[in-house]
Amino acid sequence: MRSAFYISDSTAITAEVFGHALLSFFPEEFNHVTIPFVETIKKAQQVNKQIEKSFQDSGMRPLVFHTIVNAQVKEIISSGAGISYSFLDQFIAPLEKELGVMVKPEKHRTHSIHERTYDIRIQAVNFAMASDDGANPKNYDEADIILIGVSRSGKTPTSLYLALQYGINAANYPFTEDDMVGELKLPDVLHAHKEKLFGLTINANLLHQIRSERRSNSRYASIKQCQMELKETENLYRRENIPFINSTRFSVEEISAKILAETGLQRRKY
Amino acid sequence: MRSAFYISDSTAITAEVFGHALLSFFPEEFNHVTIPFVETIKKAQQVNKQIEKSFQDSGMRPLVFHTIVNAQVKEIISSGAGISYSFLDQFIAPLEKELGVMVKPEKHRTHSIHERTYDIRIQAVNFAMASDDGANPKNYDEADIILIGVSRSGKTPTSLYLALQYGINAANYPFTEDDMVGELKLPDVLHAHKEKLFGLTINANLLHQIRSERRSNSRYASIKQCQMELKETENLYRRENIPFINSTRFSVEEISAKILAETGLQRRKY
Repeated sequence: MRSAFYISDSTAITAEVFGHALLSFFPEEFNHVTIPFVETIKKAQQVNKQIEKSFQDSGMRPLVFHTIVNAQVKEIISSGAGISYSFLDQFIAPLEKELGVMVKPEKHRTHSIHERTYDIRIQAVNFAMASDDGANPKNYDEADIILIGVSRSGKTPTSLYLALQYGINAANYPFTEDDMVGELKLPDVLHAHKEKLFGLTINANLLHQIRSERRSNSRYASIKQCQMELKETENLYRRENIPFINSTRFSVEEISAKILAETGLQRRKY
Repeated sequence: MRSAFYISDSTAITAEVFGHALLSFFPEEFNHVTIPFVETIKKAQQVNKQIEKSFQDSGMRPLVFHTIVNAQVKEIISSGAGISYSFLDQFIAPLEKELGVMVKPEKHRTHSIHERTYDIRIQAVNFAMASDDGANPKNYDEADIILIGVSRSGKTPTSLYLALQYGINAANYPFTEDDMVGELKLPDVLHAHKEKLFGLTINANLLHQIRSERRSNSRYASIKQCQMELKETENLYRRENIPFINSTRFSVEEISAKILAETGLQRRKY
């Protein structure tokens, strides 16, 4: 199998995200190797040996996607045995021309710490943790969004993703069977924050499967129970005009991006 | 201020990550606007109006970074009032040539759901939540890594990032003052999993500041207490040969990438 290397003198997150996006268009499978923090000539030479070895072992020239700022390190990696793609160089020169300014490499700081955004994200993670699964509704004044839905519909991962990626204060509140004696009504604790509510729902078969892994053969996991809870929940969303999304076919990234697009919620961190 | 648009017919995460990386080299500030899920001609035309308006309002041509698969949508956005950069087109053709195959746009799936990785990440998030702050040490057999350190040294956000981004089962365990009556020793519950331990430490002044925001003027937040706890912790790391990192100047992304690089821990999700 051909290897794809993602190399940087920083986290290599950009190289990885963009390289993956490109390769996702191709029918091949690749052996993915990320190597962050290649900051010295010595380290770069070691990486080149690894690329060389991958070439020899597989007989296929590795793809080498890189976003390296240090000029010497970049030159070493570019001259290695792989097929080198310098992601930054391709766009930096045209941008310099358009903007009429030259880059300041020392200003570079993607995925590194920014005083302000650091605090914002850590605080948002703390908020999401403290406000998970219906805990601490007294915090809802500080919430940017409150995700609602039945158990295992994706509320917790989405809350945490919104916090970590965007610095958004996301609480989440579960509807349980106890809420559904008769028609599901909006709990009092949510009523006062109705404009912050966003609903999640999910396909009943998938929910059944997810819950079965947790508690197999339980009433909680039964298809009938899942269907009932989801029907009640979706009826509530419609009756109360609460925006909602069916998470069945979407990743956490997609659900989060859709929530932002639909609510117009402003991220606190870029 | 000039606007930078990040546009895609999917989440726009790739456009955002790569666009940000490029702009981080320039001294200017930009007004960042992300528009995901531009999937129809109608939506594309609306977006073009927004770009046009930004141009008129600011007098500066917006930068338009896009990763659009749909050919019609791409053409509309490319012909708008902004300076258009098609991130994918720049590299797809050279890659096709090198790999000797044509892309299959319908195969495209970055940041969308993959059956296998979905489960892995959600399970990893559940694991991190259940194993936060010393909870459930009985789970440590299933842990890929156990982060250790004093309160507020960055354990929880790092655990969650490792789970969400890489599908890694990360537990975390806090050292408290009670552990430090006399010399800090490795708690029994950690001894059996010593090869999974990774330590975090932090600058005493920053810890003092972070703790003061939480409980100002407390013993817990005092600089003296912070210095004592950090000294004991770092001594333990050195004595027991536990790898550790000082998180003071690093983002969650950097800490996570450094942990992966140093431990050789394999991510479960790409």
